[in-house]
Amino acid sequence: MKKKYFSIYLLFLFSAFYANAQNADSIMIRKIADEILMHSKAYENLEFLCKKIGSRLSGSVNASKAINATVAMLKAAGADTVYLQPCMVPHWVRGAKEVAYAILPGNKKYPLSVCAIGNTIATKPGAVSAEVVEVKSMEALHELGNTVKGKIVFFNFKMNPLYLETFRAYGEAGNGRRIGPAQAAKYGAVAAIVRSLASNIDDYPHTGTTQYNDSFPKIAAIAISTKDAEWLSNAIINNKRLKVFFKTSCKMLPDVQSYNVVGEITGTCKPWEIITVGGHLDSWDLGEGAQDDGAGCVQSIEIIRAFKQMSIKPKRTIRVVLFMNEENGLRGGIAYAKHAEKYKELIVFALESDAGGYTPRGFFTNAKAEVRRKIESWLPLFKNYGVYYLIDGQGGADIGPLEPMGTVLAGLAPDSQRYFDLHHAANDVFEAVSKRELDLGAVNMAAFVWLVSEYGFF
Amino acid sequence: MKKKYFSIYLLFLFSAFYANAQNADSIMIRKIADEILMHSKAYENLEFLCKKIGSRLSGSVNASKAINATVAMLKAAGADTVYLQPCMVPHWVRGAKEVAYAILPGNKKYPLSVCAIGNTIATKPGAVSAEVVEVKSMEALHELGNTVKGKIVFFNFKMNPLYLETFRAYGEAGNGRRIGPAQAAKYGAVAAIVRSLASNIDDYPHTGTTQYNDSFPKIAAIAISTKDAEWLSNAIINNKRLKVFFKTSCKMLPDVQSYNVVGEITGTCKPWEIITVGGHLDSWDLGEGAQDDGAGCVQSIEIIRAFKQMSIKPKRTIRVVLFMNEENGLRGGIAYAKHAEKYKELIVFALESDAGGYTPRGFFTNAKAEVRRKIESWLPLFKNYGVYYLIDGQGGADIGPLEPMGTVLAGLAPDSQRYFDLHHAANDVFEAVSKRELDLGAVNMAAFVWLVSEYGFF
Repeated sequence: MKKKYFSIYLLFLFSAFYANAQNADSIMIRKIADEILMHSKAYENLEFLCKKIGSRLSGSVNASKAINATVAMLKAAGADTVYLQPCMVPHWVRGAKEVAYAILPGNKKYPLSVCAIGNTIATKPGAVSAEVVEVKSMEALHELGNTVKGKIVFFNFKMNPLYLETFRAYGEAGNGRRIGPAQAAKYGAVAAIVRSLASNIDDYPHTGTTQYNDSFPKIAAIAISTKDAEWLSNAIINNKRLKVFFKTSCKMLPDVQSYNVVGEITGTCKPWEIITVGGHLDSWDLGEGAQDDGAGCVQSIEIIRAFKQMSIKPKRTIRVVLFMNEENGLRGGIAYAKHAEKYKELIVFALESDAGGYTPRGFFTNAKAEVRRKIESWLPLFKNYGVYYLIDGQGGADIGPLEPMGTVLAGLAPDSQRYFDLHHAANDVFEAVSKRELDLGAVNMAAFVWLVSEYGFF
Repeated sequence: MKKKYFSIYLLFLFSAFYANAQNADSIMIRKIADEILMHSKAYENLEFLCKKIGSRLSGSVNASKAINATVAMLKAAGADTVYLQPCMVPHWVRGAKEVAYAILPGNKKYPLSVCAIGNTIATKPGAVSAEVVEVKSMEALHELGNTVKGKIVFFNFKMNPLYLETFRAYGEAGNGRRIGPAQAAKYGAVAAIVRSLASNIDDYPHTGTTQYNDSFPKIAAIAISTKDAEWLSNAIINNKRLKVFFKTSCKMLPDVQSYNVVGEITGTCKPWEIITVGGHLDSWDLGEGAQDDGAGCVQSIEIIRAFKQMSIKPKRTIRVVLFMNEENGLRGGIAYAKHAEKYKELIVFALESDAGGYTPRGFFTNAKAEVRRKIESWLPLFKNYGVYYLIDGQGGADIGPLEPMGTVLAGLAPDSQRYFDLHHAANDVFEAVSKRELDLGAVNMAAFVWLVSEYGFF
């Protein structure tokens, strides 16, 4: 019996200790939150990236400007070290504004709202004009097989509105854009039209990349706005031989020297244990790259600003990385992981914000077993700032290449309802970002980074 | 021992039964969600209210148009009965666009972005021009006392950015607008300027009501945009005798006959037990009343449409009420409660959506003890649609007058970060609403209404 009471006593002591620790953490996180909610520079940094620079496609002049601008922001935030990490990036250019229309009876033209899909070739020679065959699934294309020869395949894959997490719908519907053009080419199609990966119905075409397959010819491919995808689908019902004309002028130029932008606070106890936190600095060329992913960049910079302002001296090194070329190559993320491998860096944790700067709800993580339980034990600490759950996921494309090294990966999981209204489209502009939502995201990221810097995972 | 096993067996049976019941509820709610997420008319109804009608201030022609339009929407949704419930409403009109400027040295005019506060009188005679005294709290005004005589009191109360729930900040900072002008008049001030109750810094002035006090003179009062409030506050530091000129032309006309719009599905088992669900149909005159509160109206109508489309026959009566005059009188809400009292209606539950059509997170409720526990036991059923918590609150101003009758009150609690960027301002327009967020709100409301219609609270 004595032993039992002693155990209970120990349990009590442990609980009291644990409760006190959580309480101290809670107070610390409240202070970090207050600093960010009162004095954040994230929103004005984002305004600069969006309004003074604009879109930042890899290899572009704007991408270079953004590198210089964020170096200055990291220095102003007080980072101990700021440096560039080189990587070669693809340099795809859109060229002249795309032209596209359906050819109606009497040779009337019905204009379509489209954009070339990233990394595609231009229409050759000059333009394409052919009958359109609609498919609503990849299986449907395979069933049609060679009957699509000489035609334009129209991948009309809708994002499933029934999922709460729109990223799931994006993942499922996205194979139309990602592999559709190559699959259409396999059967002899001359071009592809892909329904924009958008969860709403409007006039904006949404770009993104496609992956050609070296076994098949490269064909031109455009994304069409959801509104015009609906129109086209209906038009085909009434006119099975409907033709579409389109012209794109994009091309892939030789690779260009570019950089990841890095800023660090050196750890005081275990500086060799590195916590990476970041977003990607490049963006598609159509909008201003505000939610995707200027938001993630300025949130990450804000962590350094807040910690330095508060004189927080983290035990482990905090390294902000603004990755280059997430959108059409992932060269920055790959270069980062290669460098870490080569120099045997110990990256214990990587946190990315690349799901928009919307109101925070959770974190993606690949953490398993005891690491996951540890993160779960921290969840109550985020509750006052909007985060309340963990979802399975790698956290972000740029940090994915770190996974084989055993790095614990996580990503901010903001509310996803509005993201695919503007993702990769011309309406991804500064005005679509809420200062409070952006700052709350930074608060939760800063809290997570602080907890890992303080306690590690093991 | 046998007794013990029997108890365990009973517990097991009960748990199994309970789990099965929750599972059946979960399946039913999934079906309701699918219907709404696939076929909702909420967004197009909202577009009609915002774009074909526009702002709907009580007593205005537009408010009448909105009554007719929503009667038609409820009929189209398939309501068993649709009727109007009369109430007299105040008829305040803004008159000519307000003019306001600060008078700088050399008689230069610095224009200020302002709007008259609702229910106020016009400046008399013609305009006001006086020195401005800034106060940052009501206590500061009381300390100044009669020294504000002949001056304009500038209530520069900021919304506290540290609260996750912006409604809390609104409640605290809001006394500047609600009682400030009357308090300033008490000390002889000639007019009042109130910092807009907005959580961001921009050029939009936000209106709202103020309450005069019959013991003191009525004075003119305007809301100033947060950007100009910041400017004015700084300008006064450099120029203690800074004068502001402003002119408003608003007035209160005689009361006008108006109506709540009501649509019902009659209950099959206990039709006398009434579940009220609604929003308010009136809006301020500056924007289109999209988030405040066209959203709540169309979400409520959507519940009837979905239930009728799915042939759901609720056990209790579901009554959608679109309240008139929430913004500047609450006459609709009061008339509704009076009618219920007079005819001894048994309103078991009232759910309002008047916190915006943003992504849902929780419900406000005044429920106590066992009712609250029952609602808490339902929370897991909402998880797939974004709702995960309960907060203390009445749920909505319109249903507040039902509280003395013992009605359980609740309100949809969407994410509140963006709400006060546009609340009562010209930017509360249709474009600020996300279809997915609006529909998800309707899903959670429909699920809650269905659970209460099925099980009641007692």
